[in-house]
Amino acid sequence: MTVRAAVAGASGYAGGELLRLLLTHPEVEIGALTGDSNAGRRLGALQPHLLPLADRVLSETTADVLAAHDVVFLALPHGRSAAVAEQLGPDVLVVDMGADFRLKDAADWERFYGSPHAGTWPYGLPELPGARAALEGSKRIAVPGCYPTAVSLALYPAYAAGLAGTEAVIVAASGTSGAGRTPKPHLLGSEVMGSMSPYGVGGVHRHTPEMIQNLSAAAGEPVTVSFTPTLAPMPRGILATCSATAREGVTAESLRAAYEKAFADEPFVHLLPEGQWPATASVHGSNAVQVQVTHDAAANRIIAISAIDNLTKGTAGGAVQSMNLALGLPEELGLSTIGVAP
Amino acid sequence: MTVRAAVAGASGYAGGELLRLLLTHPEVEIGALTGDSNAGRRLGALQPHLLPLADRVLSETTADVLAAHDVVFLALPHGRSAAVAEQLGPDVLVVDMGADFRLKDAADWERFYGSPHAGTWPYGLPELPGARAALEGSKRIAVPGCYPTAVSLALYPAYAAGLAGTEAVIVAASGTSGAGRTPKPHLLGSEVMGSMSPYGVGGVHRHTPEMIQNLSAAAGEPVTVSFTPTLAPMPRGILATCSATAREGVTAESLRAAYEKAFADEPFVHLLPEGQWPATASVHGSNAVQVQVTHDAAANRIIAISAIDNLTKGTAGGAVQSMNLALGLPEELGLSTIGVAP
Amino acid sequence: MTVRAAVAGASGYAGGELLRLLLTHPEVEIGALTGDSNAGRRLGALQPHLLPLADRVLSETTADVLAAHDVVFLALPHGRSAAVAEQLGPDVLVVDMGADFRLKDAADWERFYGSPHAGTWPYGLPELPGARAALEGSKRIAVPGCYPTAVSLALYPAYAAGLAGTEAVIVAASGTSGAGRTPKPHLLGSEVMGSMSPYGVGGVHRHTPEMIQNLSAAAGEPVTVSFTPTLAPMPRGILATCSATAREGVTAESLRAAYEKAFADEPFVHLLPEGQWPATASVHGSNAVQVQVTHDAAANRIIAISAIDNLTKGTAGGAVQSMNLALGLPEELGLSTIGVAP
Amino acid sequence: MTVRAAVAGASGYAGGELLRLLLTHPEVEIGALTGDSNAGRRLGALQPHLLPLADRVLSETTADVLAAHDVVFLALPHGRSAAVAEQLGPDVLVVDMGADFRLKDAADWERFYGSPHAGTWPYGLPELPGARAALEGSKRIAVPGCYPTAVSLALYPAYAAGLAGTEAVIVAASGTSGAGRTPKPHLLGSEVMGSMSPYGVGGVHRHTPEMIQNLSAAAGEPVTVSFTPTLAPMPRGILATCSATAREGVTAESLRAAYEKAFADEPFVHLLPEGQWPATASVHGSNAVQVQVTHDAAANRIIAISAIDNLTKGTAGGAVQSMNLALGLPEELGLSTIGVAP
Repeated sequence: MTVRAAVAGASGYAGGELLRLLLTHPEVEIGALTGDSNAGRRLGALQPHLLPLADRVLSETTADVLAAHDVVFLALPHGRSAAVAEQLGPDVLVVDMGADFRLKDAADWERFYGSPHAGTWPYGLPELPGARAALEGSKRIAVPGCYPTAVSLALYPAYAAGLAGTEAVIVAASGTSGAGRTPKPHLLGSEVMGSMSPYGVGGVHRHTPEMIQNLSAAAGEPVTVSFTPTLAPMPRGILATCSATAREGVTAESLRAAYEKAFADEPFVHLLPEGQWPATASVHGSNAVQVQVTHDAAANRIIAISAIDNLTKGTAGGAVQSMNLALGLPEELGLSTIGVAP
Repeated sequence: MTVRAAVAGASGYAGGELLRLLLTHPEVEIGALTGDSNAGRRLGALQPHLLPLADRVLSETTADVLAAHDVVFLALPHGRSAAVAEQLGPDVLVVDMGADFRLKDAADWERFYGSPHAGTWPYGLPELPGARAALEGSKRIAVPGCYPTAVSLALYPAYAAGLAGTEAVIVAASGTSGAGRTPKPHLLGSEVMGSMSPYGVGGVHRHTPEMIQNLSAAAGEPVTVSFTPTLAPMPRGILATCSATAREGVTAESLRAAYEKAFADEPFVHLLPEGQWPATASVHGSNAVQVQVTHDAAANRIIAISAIDNLTKGTAGGAVQSMNLALGLPEELGLSTIGVAP
Repeated sequence: MTVRAAVAGASGYAGGELLRLLLTHPEVEIGALTGDSNAGRRLGALQPHLLPLADRVLSETTADVLAAHDVVFLALPHGRSAAVAEQLGPDVLVVDMGADFRLKDAADWERFYGSPHAGTWPYGLPELPGARAALEGSKRIAVPGCYPTAVSLALYPAYAAGLAGTEAVIVAASGTSGAGRTPKPHLLGSEVMGSMSPYGVGGVHRHTPEMIQNLSAAAGEPVTVSFTPTLAPMPRGILATCSATAREGVTAESLRAAYEKAFADEPFVHLLPEGQWPATASVHGSNAVQVQVTHDAAANRIIAISAIDNLTKGTAGGAVQSMNLALGLPEELGLSTIGVAP
Repeated sequence: MTVRAAVAGASGYAGGELLRLLLTHPEVEIGALTGDSNAGRRLGALQPHLLPLADRVLSETTADVLAAHDVVFLALPHGRSAAVAEQLGPDVLVVDMGADFRLKDAADWERFYGSPHAGTWPYGLPELPGARAALEGSKRIAVPGCYPTAVSLALYPAYAAGLAGTEAVIVAASGTSGAGRTPKPHLLGSEVMGSMSPYGVGGVHRHTPEMIQNLSAAAGEPVTVSFTPTLAPMPRGILATCSATAREGVTAESLRAAYEKAFADEPFVHLLPEGQWPATASVHGSNAVQVQVTHDAAANRIIAISAIDNLTKGTAGGAVQSMNLALGLPEELGLSTIGVAP
């Protein structure tokens, strides 16, 4: 099977990472590439690391250009995917890398995004209970947010096993590519290097309801999430430090057993040996997730920490993994668990 | 008054930062400088940024060399300060930048440091309730750890005002200088750049009992602390993200009022205007502390975040501030609230 | 003497660094601060590291606002200084931190800057032969470019002593703050971190004629300059690697003697001991210049390398140093040779 | 054909990068892995980014362990390869990633390395004139140094076409992984971040004679090289800025034509479109080389700049490329021209 794929939003970081992965995917042929302000430009000027595509020229993002592909990836600003998807027809696999179709609760969507809810598509985090089945054969996929990917994988086993209290506290550090490629003063290299800073503090970050949705589903009861994202002086990577009160009787051993069971057959999630902790450099450019968990007996808390590459497993790699499932391809095809380090 | 100061451990990062500050302190004259493996070497080869001291040569760390100074700063590995301090006589002001005399509870010390407790000295965090009085005129000062400095200043007002529940959850990111200057594989630039990683997870970091001591004192009841330190790809700075359950009736306004009151007369702690959050770059090289606090109503948590320079306010600046108090000098002398940014 | 100083362009990196220095200058009182797009905003939101000025509000850049000061610093985009300076009257000391008045040759100016030449003011690099005298008592100062500062100080002693051939080859690495604070895609942290890249290659960088002017003056004959600037993943600092053919008879010793003589009385330029090489971290935030020179006998070339902080000695510190000379104050007043490292 | 490969020195950066590439090489099976001080340890603790090899345990580096493989890669400290290679027999393909067999001139070797010359093996830079033929079918390969790779590819076309004068001036910036994984004070993250510094200045760097060898061969006459390496605050990448006097009649067009011709059939060397310059981030993790060249008419110099990943094309990728040639496999097998950016 050769799958012809179009990428809308090929000049951004998510689009660039997706193309990096698709270039080595054995069943994918790269079709139309679109951009908006960059339409008409050579990809070599915009994504100079993608040498094999250097001479490709970006088109404008229209349904005409995107139609006639087997798969269309949408790496567009929030709120733009629905209009494009509608015109693509039910036989085209549409993979939305934006937020538009992630949330089930329309009120949550409206509160956090300020626009009408477009709907809900199968959620592209195959590792979550039940998610794989919903993705298989689907023609629509909502790729998760990068933070919810890191956080949900770190904490869902504790919730699914009934080990964690319902008030999760999460602090995550992200590389700057998570903030996108649009130039803004606070994202300048001069501002970012040598500095750690929080943003979206106090429950206002848009990924919060997505985490609540995932963890509550795993727990079978409502979970609250206190989420603080921070910007770290590195281009890629998310380190998510997640904790929750340990339910009575929880031990380091019962925690480890729950995580071993949860990840036993997962091709991309790697529970580290005891005593070894995740590092974002270890998953740089890879679709792997490093997880470690322990029990702080004095504070009676479960501490679960994950590291992902925000652009790979956190965005484009997750998209390809879900595409594979939707198309009936091997889930790991074209993806790697090997990082580029140091 | 001219104060003659000796620095034991002048070749490390804490010692270097201390010298940077003492060089511009109007009442201090820099006396003996010592190092161990570096005894006999020019300071210019070890601390090339301290040009005015480039031709100074390090001595070995002995009481003979350190005696005959008004102030002796000890920037030595943990466990070595007591033996030196004993030989220095009661009239010399001894400022210990190590951990030896920070903890009140001998059992805590022994559990976390694995050696007999040396005693407890006045604690050099003047902003804490009662701390200033204990420092004034003292001849012995225990400089706080860098993380406890950042965390205690972020959270004590909430505890002192009775607004926060007793289970604090803290995730902090530190620049690499906090790990010292002894070469270790995981501290190599190649490993550190582009990577975030946790360490000392699960309640085992040695700064944990110090935070518990400070926050419990502020609260007037025992506080537990879940503390996760992370290593960030930057040379300096600590960003501490601290949270606790909000007690009934807490609002963003009551929180802000408590913090405004706590910091109203503090020369170095700066509560940022609403909506602005701390950044480590803003306090680079300065003794300032940036703090912001909010209430996450959905999760019912207080989120307090602080940024310090781990070497300045977190170590050497804190030491000078306490020295000023001990000597009856103006507390701000020789210290700055101006950062070096970008 | 208290000097009242205004700063036009207080929201940029050069303006911010200037304010950082002026805040601790014992004879300066900071007056009006202006910005254009940022007029009306609190400085605390724009330069959060300058805590003592946090509540200052920026005015628009007009002659009315700037007049009635003893000194006016212009940190404006190229081409805007002349119009402002004209309205300020001959008694106000005007220090232009832009390029407008640096070049003597109008044709050079027009070729590199594409606009009519505004004139030539005394050149604010006091270390160059004859420069100090021209600055003393002057009411107009053209602050040098950051690269020409680093390069001229590294090479002029070799030219002044007749040791170097007339074809200089220079490769310099600059921190990103040298490119300013206007957000541009290639200056995003995501692009800059982990990357070295050249720009302005092939003799087209605007600082080239300024270097030629300085080195030719030192040599007493025309010098050509091949200059390649590169962008380095750090916020501050310039490392300039400069070389030229060694004239007959040149040895490491004769070179060293020439440099020792040139810098013997210089308060800010530090010829490192033999075998020690400059590092930008060592001059971070300081007005010091580290220089080292050697003779590559096999290639018969003089290699002279300097490190400066592009914002301090390379811009704002150089401006203050020249202001001091113009006002008859001690040249070193308010400036430091102590870097903030690590 | 399945090739069984052993790697001696699997715990260092070169060894780790080699394993990263071999893991996805379709014709290679990874056999014995050795280390010295790390013998007995799990690879997962040393190279946590290589998940598929996490459970492999390192052996000691002995000929017994390495024998019985088709290919043995030696990533050992300089001076150790000869003794190992001797014991491996003439049928084993031995790829030395150290310096021992790179230089043809024994006197050069002894002057720069201070030990007896071990011999000369076919030089693993296939792009150089004549190099490919010498590698095909060879059982011994000397992998070039990282700097000579970047520099030779940037400049040899100008020399081969007779366009450049014989005095080359080279300044290169390298990421810290080029300095290896042995912990040393100046390689600490705290020292490296935010700093540019030179080392090995004045013709003493060991890669200098290797560059001279390559460029002189291309020129057909002796070329001198003034080489200044600098350490940049990034983990990977080399940016080499190379220049030489332009011979009479050289123009930007004649230069470009020479480079287009030289690289026309090269799978890994990419001459960028006019006006676009190399960046190390664009080749991060890839075997690609970005090159650009221009003529500075005012200084009459050719400026040629290349960017490589020092660990990939500069070491391990170059090793695999040469292995492919030696074994009669397609030269590009298992290698990529796609970088991991941002």
